[in-house]
Amino acid sequence: MSGKTEYSPKMQALFERVAEFSDLEGIMALLGWDQQVYMPPGGAEERGLQSAALGRILHEKFATEEFGQLIADLEDEIGDLNAETDVARSVKVIKRNYEKQVKVPLPLLMESIKAQTMAHEAWVQAKARSDFSIFKPHLETIVDLRKQYVELFQPYDHIYDPLLDDFEPGMKTADVKEIFDKLRPQQVELLQAITEKELPDNSFIKQPYKEDYQDLFGRHVITCFGYDWQRGRMDVAPHPFTTGFGLGDVRITTRYLKDDVGSALFSTMHESGHAMYAQGVSEKYKRHPLGGAASLAIHESQSRLWENIIGRSKEFWTYFYPSFQMLFPEYLAEVSLADFYRGINRVEPSFIRVEADEATYNMHIMLRLEIEIGLMEGTINVGDLPEIWNNKMQDYLGITPPDDARGVLQDIHWSGGMIGYFPTYALGNLASVQLWEKLLQEHPNVPDEIAQAKFDTILAWMREHVHQYGAKYDPQEIMIKATGSKITPEPYMAYLRKKYAEIYDL
Amino acid sequence: MSGKTEYSPKMQALFERVAEFSDLEGIMALLGWDQQVYMPPGGAEERGLQSAALGRILHEKFATEEFGQLIADLEDEIGDLNAETDVARSVKVIKRNYEKQVKVPLPLLMESIKAQTMAHEAWVQAKARSDFSIFKPHLETIVDLRKQYVELFQPYDHIYDPLLDDFEPGMKTADVKEIFDKLRPQQVELLQAITEKELPDNSFIKQPYKEDYQDLFGRHVITCFGYDWQRGRMDVAPHPFTTGFGLGDVRITTRYLKDDVGSALFSTMHESGHAMYAQGVSEKYKRHPLGGAASLAIHESQSRLWENIIGRSKEFWTYFYPSFQMLFPEYLAEVSLADFYRGINRVEPSFIRVEADEATYNMHIMLRLEIEIGLMEGTINVGDLPEIWNNKMQDYLGITPPDDARGVLQDIHWSGGMIGYFPTYALGNLASVQLWEKLLQEHPNVPDEIAQAKFDTILAWMREHVHQYGAKYDPQEIMIKATGSKITPEPYMAYLRKKYAEIYDL
Repeated sequence: MSGKTEYSPKMQALFERVAEFSDLEGIMALLGWDQQVYMPPGGAEERGLQSAALGRILHEKFATEEFGQLIADLEDEIGDLNAETDVARSVKVIKRNYEKQVKVPLPLLMESIKAQTMAHEAWVQAKARSDFSIFKPHLETIVDLRKQYVELFQPYDHIYDPLLDDFEPGMKTADVKEIFDKLRPQQVELLQAITEKELPDNSFIKQPYKEDYQDLFGRHVITCFGYDWQRGRMDVAPHPFTTGFGLGDVRITTRYLKDDVGSALFSTMHESGHAMYAQGVSEKYKRHPLGGAASLAIHESQSRLWENIIGRSKEFWTYFYPSFQMLFPEYLAEVSLADFYRGINRVEPSFIRVEADEATYNMHIMLRLEIEIGLMEGTINVGDLPEIWNNKMQDYLGITPPDDARGVLQDIHWSGGMIGYFPTYALGNLASVQLWEKLLQEHPNVPDEIAQAKFDTILAWMREHVHQYGAKYDPQEIMIKATGSKITPEPYMAYLRKKYAEIYDL
Repeated sequence: MSGKTEYSPKMQALFERVAEFSDLEGIMALLGWDQQVYMPPGGAEERGLQSAALGRILHEKFATEEFGQLIADLEDEIGDLNAETDVARSVKVIKRNYEKQVKVPLPLLMESIKAQTMAHEAWVQAKARSDFSIFKPHLETIVDLRKQYVELFQPYDHIYDPLLDDFEPGMKTADVKEIFDKLRPQQVELLQAITEKELPDNSFIKQPYKEDYQDLFGRHVITCFGYDWQRGRMDVAPHPFTTGFGLGDVRITTRYLKDDVGSALFSTMHESGHAMYAQGVSEKYKRHPLGGAASLAIHESQSRLWENIIGRSKEFWTYFYPSFQMLFPEYLAEVSLADFYRGINRVEPSFIRVEADEATYNMHIMLRLEIEIGLMEGTINVGDLPEIWNNKMQDYLGITPPDDARGVLQDIHWSGGMIGYFPTYALGNLASVQLWEKLLQEHPNVPDEIAQAKFDTILAWMREHVHQYGAKYDPQEIMIKATGSKITPEPYMAYLRKKYAEIYDL
């Protein structure tokens, strides 16, 4: 932390406390990473207890009256200091986190951690057997605990607001609904136009590509993007994710499927986007209140930028397809660049969110938001979820999942108590294009640069306008500063229309 | 923990506290494992701070007056309860650890952690450049801090006692000296007899064996031994080690050298011995005061058993050599079993402890013990270490290291403040054979079983007589219970004489 000496003793005490929290949160993240990546099965029980022990320590250290008093004193101390200064912002961010923590009684916290551990195990089983009844009682408990949690934040405008705010600070349910209401008819209209056309072939993607060459190519691509291997690494895990143990160690995972080369490829690019955001936070925010991220939507704007806007673009493949073709001649020797590009951009209603194309992805999110709001409002019962899910899939995408594993049981989020998370995926899609359009206005040459595997203009722009600030600004502030507007669906829809008009000759 | 309900509320409070310590110590071990195995360079600074933060929490939670009072109350409560019961032993072990912790002021602890972090970095550099002057000031600080530490344990018989006791509870410097005094002339005599004979060829070992087949063979062997992969894993690290995060997750590492197939092979067996000990502790000691190990010497007795007594035996290779030959025909097709066996048991004075053969290994330890005692007594100055080291090498082994990297700088221990650790290696060698001889008396068929790759009698015997007890008994108690005697050099020397008489025709 630079300029330590300027601070008052109390301010210094605050920063030192936060540095310690940051150390302990880094440790917590390592426990989770290892659990998903390398832990043998026998370690599960003790690992759960280790995470719980550390979680309790974090809560006990953070949610104290004395710490609340320190924050209050510092609010007085900074008084009318410019609200844009790091110090003022730090106190604001700490206060917000503190108030969320201190409201939660330790028994509710520990009960929630326990319920989530059990719900996760049940969900894994339920999904494997495609049997929702195994998961049902656990999800009922989760929803009940989330309702107890939300009640601690009375008064609110909407019962879903406190949940959403945990992932997207400052965002209201009404804001999301407004955005989604504008988005929905446009997405439906575009999808209808596309489905009248012939589907491009993508059978060459659905082949058993050699894993070591997939790994080679994925690492090559994200190295070109600018992922810093000195401060990170990539491993294999059942579900791709990004995690960080500090500014100096931001790791990603990927997974290789036997029948789809796109899975590892695009999720590696996706996770590298998350990781480059975390690696791009200003060094001065190391072990600092502002060392995190603005929100999940801003995070997702970065991952989707590299995965979709860049990674599924014609310019990207103009440069990289020859290398890709060289590695996999058995599947690609006869496939032209044009056909490959059309293949990886094939639009088709499908059951699984994480495999959805750009034109249908947001529909998966809208469906989940409606269900989550219904669960919290009490208008939807957990027991009716499979039927409701399937009906909504039919409404939105015109298809019905053949089983619950490919329906209501597909996502891990609810088993971990993460209700309120899904909307950030769609908001991130919108934000990604909004930032991209602004970048393009300032640097119209960027597509040509991509076609030469030059990504430094893009990364530098994102560093300057998004990454460096860490958690200093709220997500909508970031968007306004960077693009002049809050998150809005127009750029995204314009981007989709233009892209698919060309591919599908609309 | 079984039978929880029988305990008094205070006893239950004690066990709950210890369970939490155990969770946090498991986390600390994970931080270390990841640091050595997978952490990218950029993570080092924050990892150091994370370990320090957790270390501070452990100290603050453990070294409290209130906890000391709880222990004192429980000593009264158990009163004249049989000292052999788990409860009585648990209180004894906790009290010993508590008294060690509480005597160390937090500033000294934190200064030591910091000094060790810096000394480790300096040692890495010094070793790489073979320049002792880089390490010298750091080692001076380490020795000074160790002296401050030892003073907290006045009165003692010998200044080295408190250090030794940290690794080998109950063992005194005088005990070790007595054992080494008996051992030294016999080791020297045996070595002289061997060096008059012709050296067996071992050039076929010093070849660039394929790493993936080395990995295959190593995993196969320790699977046969009985290492439980459900509760562990093996990774590659610069230095082989074993670590555990609980009874359910005990991991090992190995390393593959480009010019010596023996390195990974024997260190994999070695570490599996440590790990099977940790995996063999009774399930009832999970997150329990007795869940650790008796001592480092007992630990080393297990690792050396599998590495040397079994792994370098004729019986072992009678079974495994055909498989090994199949994997590496390019180096072994023309090498007979007899020549291979002689090659891996070649005796030759050498510079590096970890690569020393069974006949010279203990000399490396005796040299280090003399130096450590001299440093603590103040009769040896850090600045004179390179010269003293080289002179002692000439005395003991008749060779002089060509540089300090292969001399005084070779070991990591001192940079981590671990003075008092080395003697446990030699004690472990002695204990390994002492246990082995007892096992052979009871199960004379065991060598034949080894020749059929049957290791369950051995593992079951060690489980019964050593592993299951965890930290319940002090090391010498374990040895007396299992073999009828404290650690003594006779069985070891008899074993060496017999083995080398045959190989070298003495």
